[in-house]
Amino acid sequence: MSKASVHGAEPAARPRARDLGVALGRMQPGPLNAITDVAGVQVGQVTLIEGSGRLKEGVGPVRTGVTAILPHDGNLFREKVVAAFHVINAFGKPIGITQIAELGVLETPIILTNTLGMGTAFDGLVTHALHLNPEIGTSTGSVNPFAAECNDGALNDIRGRHVRPGHVLEAIERAAPGAVAEGVVGAGTGMTCYGWKGGIGTSSRRLPPQSGGFTIGVLVLANFGRPSDLVIGGVPVGRSIRPPRERPVAAPSEGAGSCVIVVATDAPADARQLGRIARRAQNGLAYTGTFGDHGSGEFVLAFSTARIVPHWPSSPTLPAAELAEDGPLLNALFQAVAEATEEAVVNALFTADTLSGVDDHVRYGLPVQEVIALLNHEGARVSSQPGYEPVQGTGP
Amino acid sequence: MSKASVHGAEPAARPRARDLGVALGRMQPGPLNAITDVAGVQVGQVTLIEGSGRLKEGVGPVRTGVTAILPHDGNLFREKVVAAFHVINAFGKPIGITQIAELGVLETPIILTNTLGMGTAFDGLVTHALHLNPEIGTSTGSVNPFAAECNDGALNDIRGRHVRPGHVLEAIERAAPGAVAEGVVGAGTGMTCYGWKGGIGTSSRRLPPQSGGFTIGVLVLANFGRPSDLVIGGVPVGRSIRPPRERPVAAPSEGAGSCVIVVATDAPADARQLGRIARRAQNGLAYTGTFGDHGSGEFVLAFSTARIVPHWPSSPTLPAAELAEDGPLLNALFQAVAEATEEAVVNALFTADTLSGVDDHVRYGLPVQEVIALLNHEGARVSSQPGYEPVQGTGP
Amino acid sequence: MSKASVHGAEPAARPRARDLGVALGRMQPGPLNAITDVAGVQVGQVTLIEGSGRLKEGVGPVRTGVTAILPHDGNLFREKVVAAFHVINAFGKPIGITQIAELGVLETPIILTNTLGMGTAFDGLVTHALHLNPEIGTSTGSVNPFAAECNDGALNDIRGRHVRPGHVLEAIERAAPGAVAEGVVGAGTGMTCYGWKGGIGTSSRRLPPQSGGFTIGVLVLANFGRPSDLVIGGVPVGRSIRPPRERPVAAPSEGAGSCVIVVATDAPADARQLGRIARRAQNGLAYTGTFGDHGSGEFVLAFSTARIVPHWPSSPTLPAAELAEDGPLLNALFQAVAEATEEAVVNALFTADTLSGVDDHVRYGLPVQEVIALLNHEGARVSSQPGYEPVQGTGP
Amino acid sequence: MSKASVHGAEPAARPRARDLGVALGRMQPGPLNAITDVAGVQVGQVTLIEGSGRLKEGVGPVRTGVTAILPHDGNLFREKVVAAFHVINAFGKPIGITQIAELGVLETPIILTNTLGMGTAFDGLVTHALHLNPEIGTSTGSVNPFAAECNDGALNDIRGRHVRPGHVLEAIERAAPGAVAEGVVGAGTGMTCYGWKGGIGTSSRRLPPQSGGFTIGVLVLANFGRPSDLVIGGVPVGRSIRPPRERPVAAPSEGAGSCVIVVATDAPADARQLGRIARRAQNGLAYTGTFGDHGSGEFVLAFSTARIVPHWPSSPTLPAAELAEDGPLLNALFQAVAEATEEAVVNALFTADTLSGVDDHVRYGLPVQEVIALLNHEGARVSSQPGYEPVQGTGP
Repeated sequence: MSKASVHGAEPAARPRARDLGVALGRMQPGPLNAITDVAGVQVGQVTLIEGSGRLKEGVGPVRTGVTAILPHDGNLFREKVVAAFHVINAFGKPIGITQIAELGVLETPIILTNTLGMGTAFDGLVTHALHLNPEIGTSTGSVNPFAAECNDGALNDIRGRHVRPGHVLEAIERAAPGAVAEGVVGAGTGMTCYGWKGGIGTSSRRLPPQSGGFTIGVLVLANFGRPSDLVIGGVPVGRSIRPPRERPVAAPSEGAGSCVIVVATDAPADARQLGRIARRAQNGLAYTGTFGDHGSGEFVLAFSTARIVPHWPSSPTLPAAELAEDGPLLNALFQAVAEATEEAVVNALFTADTLSGVDDHVRYGLPVQEVIALLNHEGARVSSQPGYEPVQGTGP
Repeated sequence: MSKASVHGAEPAARPRARDLGVALGRMQPGPLNAITDVAGVQVGQVTLIEGSGRLKEGVGPVRTGVTAILPHDGNLFREKVVAAFHVINAFGKPIGITQIAELGVLETPIILTNTLGMGTAFDGLVTHALHLNPEIGTSTGSVNPFAAECNDGALNDIRGRHVRPGHVLEAIERAAPGAVAEGVVGAGTGMTCYGWKGGIGTSSRRLPPQSGGFTIGVLVLANFGRPSDLVIGGVPVGRSIRPPRERPVAAPSEGAGSCVIVVATDAPADARQLGRIARRAQNGLAYTGTFGDHGSGEFVLAFSTARIVPHWPSSPTLPAAELAEDGPLLNALFQAVAEATEEAVVNALFTADTLSGVDDHVRYGLPVQEVIALLNHEGARVSSQPGYEPVQGTGP
Repeated sequence: MSKASVHGAEPAARPRARDLGVALGRMQPGPLNAITDVAGVQVGQVTLIEGSGRLKEGVGPVRTGVTAILPHDGNLFREKVVAAFHVINAFGKPIGITQIAELGVLETPIILTNTLGMGTAFDGLVTHALHLNPEIGTSTGSVNPFAAECNDGALNDIRGRHVRPGHVLEAIERAAPGAVAEGVVGAGTGMTCYGWKGGIGTSSRRLPPQSGGFTIGVLVLANFGRPSDLVIGGVPVGRSIRPPRERPVAAPSEGAGSCVIVVATDAPADARQLGRIARRAQNGLAYTGTFGDHGSGEFVLAFSTARIVPHWPSSPTLPAAELAEDGPLLNALFQAVAEATEEAVVNALFTADTLSGVDDHVRYGLPVQEVIALLNHEGARVSSQPGYEPVQGTGP
Repeated sequence: MSKASVHGAEPAARPRARDLGVALGRMQPGPLNAITDVAGVQVGQVTLIEGSGRLKEGVGPVRTGVTAILPHDGNLFREKVVAAFHVINAFGKPIGITQIAELGVLETPIILTNTLGMGTAFDGLVTHALHLNPEIGTSTGSVNPFAAECNDGALNDIRGRHVRPGHVLEAIERAAPGAVAEGVVGAGTGMTCYGWKGGIGTSSRRLPPQSGGFTIGVLVLANFGRPSDLVIGGVPVGRSIRPPRERPVAAPSEGAGSCVIVVATDAPADARQLGRIARRAQNGLAYTGTFGDHGSGEFVLAFSTARIVPHWPSSPTLPAAELAEDGPLLNALFQAVAEATEEAVVNALFTADTLSGVDDHVRYGLPVQEVIALLNHEGARVSSQPGYEPVQGTGP
């Protein structure tokens, strides 16, 4: 497993939704049910947990971290991947997005961290790129770092800006294929989701051979939603199961959430098609109950590992394999990203254990057994026998 | 009730979801639970049902119509309303949208009809505007008609283009406040939704006084979704209840669907804020199970009756009342549009009765009693005691 | 020459700018200096000129027409071309644009005509597509007609809507390769540009072999600009040469203009790259002096004849030749579209002769000899010896 | 004058274009002909010039800096200004832009610096905002820093990342109303424009009283263009006057340029209208000859000092004064921004003196006397008697 580097005591891991019989959606996950099911994709995380009690700016408590996602293990600047960025709700501070829109490529690792760490993320990614590419800024142009954020100020001394460029580099270095740590880890360390402890979640879907056998993998940094809105498998969990009421919570918590969604695929989609794929992540979020809070910055970065764009093209035209604009095929990819996004959010909730932070604020882990009891009673949208349902042209 | 003009035999009306105890969402509807709860908004419809049996292009069977929505009963060209257009999935042919984006206003009635009727809609709206405004094209510029469409070719001789400009004018003339005919009516006459008979649906939500007491009204032209994806109140209805399998359905039906969503409000939102409101309609659609099919053109037109923009402004600056960018207030509006969109789609399904069309293809009305039995068994997300839940800042 | 069908008396043709020694830009035009230099592209036009004197709505005077552009002579619905649509100023009513943005393809001929003729354009294009493709609306989905417009109400009885679907079909049928009629022809018949008679103009640029030898062709429907703003070859022509002052001009003329720009290329650009190419047309317009009037709807449709997208793809992935994201190559394409757009506008002005229309309003042909005398005196930006200047990386 | 803080030896100032009789455009500048003509706007700059000769990464030579623009001298986080961001060519790395698009406000000073300094700009702006607003990250959400960049690697040890957060804070602290230092100063220190020394330039236009008497101010960070493309006052200066040919220039310079344009106004435009205003800056750039190079990231940030948006609104609706959507008024604003952008670029070129940098590369100051001689000979588009020409509805 791409184990996170932990600075401090990390909560014990908890089981994922599907391991407890909560199988959302109808398509088949990949073997890891993770973004790393897309061949070549790597994830590395650094978790920062230090101190407790009274908030002392610059000292702690620290409840934050960094999550790095690498589309491949080569030199991303020289061998870029096709990418698209989609905004669901733009109340957020991602960096690197205009150039992705213009050129349709990603040329650095993806960094997720807390909101006030975006400057650090930029610097860390620049350091990483300059180190690997002496030509940047001398014999070629500059580099476009990509990073996105959520606000973990409910638990973390966010004003203290504890993420340093070294943590960014460490997360990149630790990136590895295989299972992905979820919950209270990396950028997810201090996050809150539907009022419960949130964080990192991941899931994947695999298309059947007749649809090309492509894989969609999703990783979310889940930090959004109001407790009363939570829906799992169609069941309005948030109506009956709510987190313990804290002492009057400070206003900042209101709508200070967000969600970053990273979508990987090995389908040879171009940037336009990746944009279409990315837009279906909103449906996946909606399946978990949210209507899209005002303050929830929701963003999707989608990339394809099947389209490598060289920094120095060798000729005016290059051969490529295009993904056909075929309805059933695209529908399979679209359904996959919606399902995997939903399940990734639920995985974040299932795996994240209770954590206390600044001023002893607590974000409780979702009471999973209680939720499962409710789901079993209500049963909606959770397959006991998950399986891929062929995408047919059954309706107009 | 703003009764539709029917040319031919219209199916009997069926009850709405809430009348049968299926109360979706948690906010309170307006008195009509319709887009016409927004004061001043009027709806008029013309239903065209003629012939049956074998498709004979240009003759029939005809299963189509026109739905007109008027933001107010004045001269819209001279007193425009602030508006925004949002694209969920742009696989469709709406007209009039670039100018709405640039100028932030709507200056004609809204016309919904079938896909190949967009030219007719344009012409009908131009005729309407020229008649009321002799200055158009002589002493002032031209006019920007707005219309949007879905493909009703599964039941309708769509190639016959049976909608004529007179039908557009008739729909406008018949526009009235009050209850809105739903289901197999107006533009919804030949539509299909989740494999069942679809069509027109509407719903509304009213904010509590402390949130300004504003109203959100939604009307949908519902013609999207695969049977297996249908979710009502969180319950995966489509997994167990499916329309009878027709003889091999022709390919065109595949993903030939779409959904047009019209959102009205009396909140004094500006064009940017209306865009934000419009974007939450995607969550409402997702609540009904869809992931956003490739071929489903999904579009939202949102307007505010509280912001009138004169064609000839009287001075360089004009006084206005702005809607505050206030989190709880915006969240109430956002939740309202998501809920009302969901309920409007479900209302279209509940009210639309079985209809046969070209080549005796049949779209069956949703078997409502069977669905309700399933919902009662599963119960998810359907309030038995619907009521407005104050929008609180309960989660980050 | 792809001669226009003229219903009525057409003004005599006048020479093009380059024929009179006014060679704008520095790159080399193609042999025709027209959009038809892109192999396969065809243009057909219908000119409607009838009546004179007092405006009588529905009778005349008629000063309008239709211009059709065909990317290739095959079945565009079955063999679509990759395309992108760009908005410079969205104060206009083009149709078919959302689907082009979503799917990146054009599947009908391009129709240009007057503003109130958009409904007719839609209908004509549908008729054309239905005739060629019996599967539309039966065994496949619908069709996405593309058309764009300018307001010719200053000379034309625009309220009379004299363009009929038959004119649209006639323009398509008359489409041919070869030289393109310019000035007072087709959709340009009643248009005004910088206060002078405007209309249709075209130009092209050919890249040198080391840049792939690609061609860029541009056709404009020029109906924009204030007299005082006109610049030709950098010379502020509009400061000293102005059209005769008419009797108080009716208000509608104010900013009622617009400009539609169609860009063709044989470079295998994808939709994203075509969008980048399209955006440079704004620079070409700016070279002619405009700052982009409020009321001037300015739109660009760019397509590539080198990327055919089949309606029914044969497999999930298709082989393609991509255009490299190479700086010097893209710069050559970008410069080409800016230069060709500038020259196309100037060609419209040079070739369009004086025409009178409704209520005896007159739009005078640009006094070309007077302009050339001024240019010779000032000389700016007009090459006497035009020639391609290799696009070098000469500046940062 | 808002004097820049200089760390090292600053080149001597040179006269501005208008001081030498080169008056571009036709509208009247404000008294300072600078962005600071918009009441309340302040500019502060820090110039970093250290070392010379051989590039030694991390040591120097240093040729960079920071330019800060403050819309007003209050607390921007609590009293935000309405703003819009427009992308001309998105090949660049601005930060803070999605939130501006979503919420339509700017809530920090604007920082311009070199490309690899964006992380530092983010950090400096966060430090500034946290210091002034203890509620950020505790009792309210986070803050959205805005910054944009150009690549000064042709002269500057850009890989050394010599801009530190303290420089950002210093630039903000030094911000003052009054005249603005131009040329080789602040963020412009190491920039190149049309092959010549570029940098900071500014200009303004004032509307006549009948158009509301509003002011448009523009400041550019000019680092774009190929030598051969330079046009001043319509005269193709770049065809005859070129910078001395350096030893073979390293590839990075090719298209590594960019241009950031900041537009201020006291017209009470809303975010949509500011977007429209911003889009006309592209015309101003085009007047200087560019076609928009592939590698030239061109961005516009426009804000209005007349629309203050409180962080904590006091009620659901707020009174406002809207800018009328009036053609002549908007045209005056549009022309103003196009003209002021053109003149700001030319001012950057006129005022920037020769500077050498890394590896003794030299960027020569534009030979102003030679240029003026050429302009006098050709004369195009340069008014000898500049004066506001009333914006009339003279053409359709």
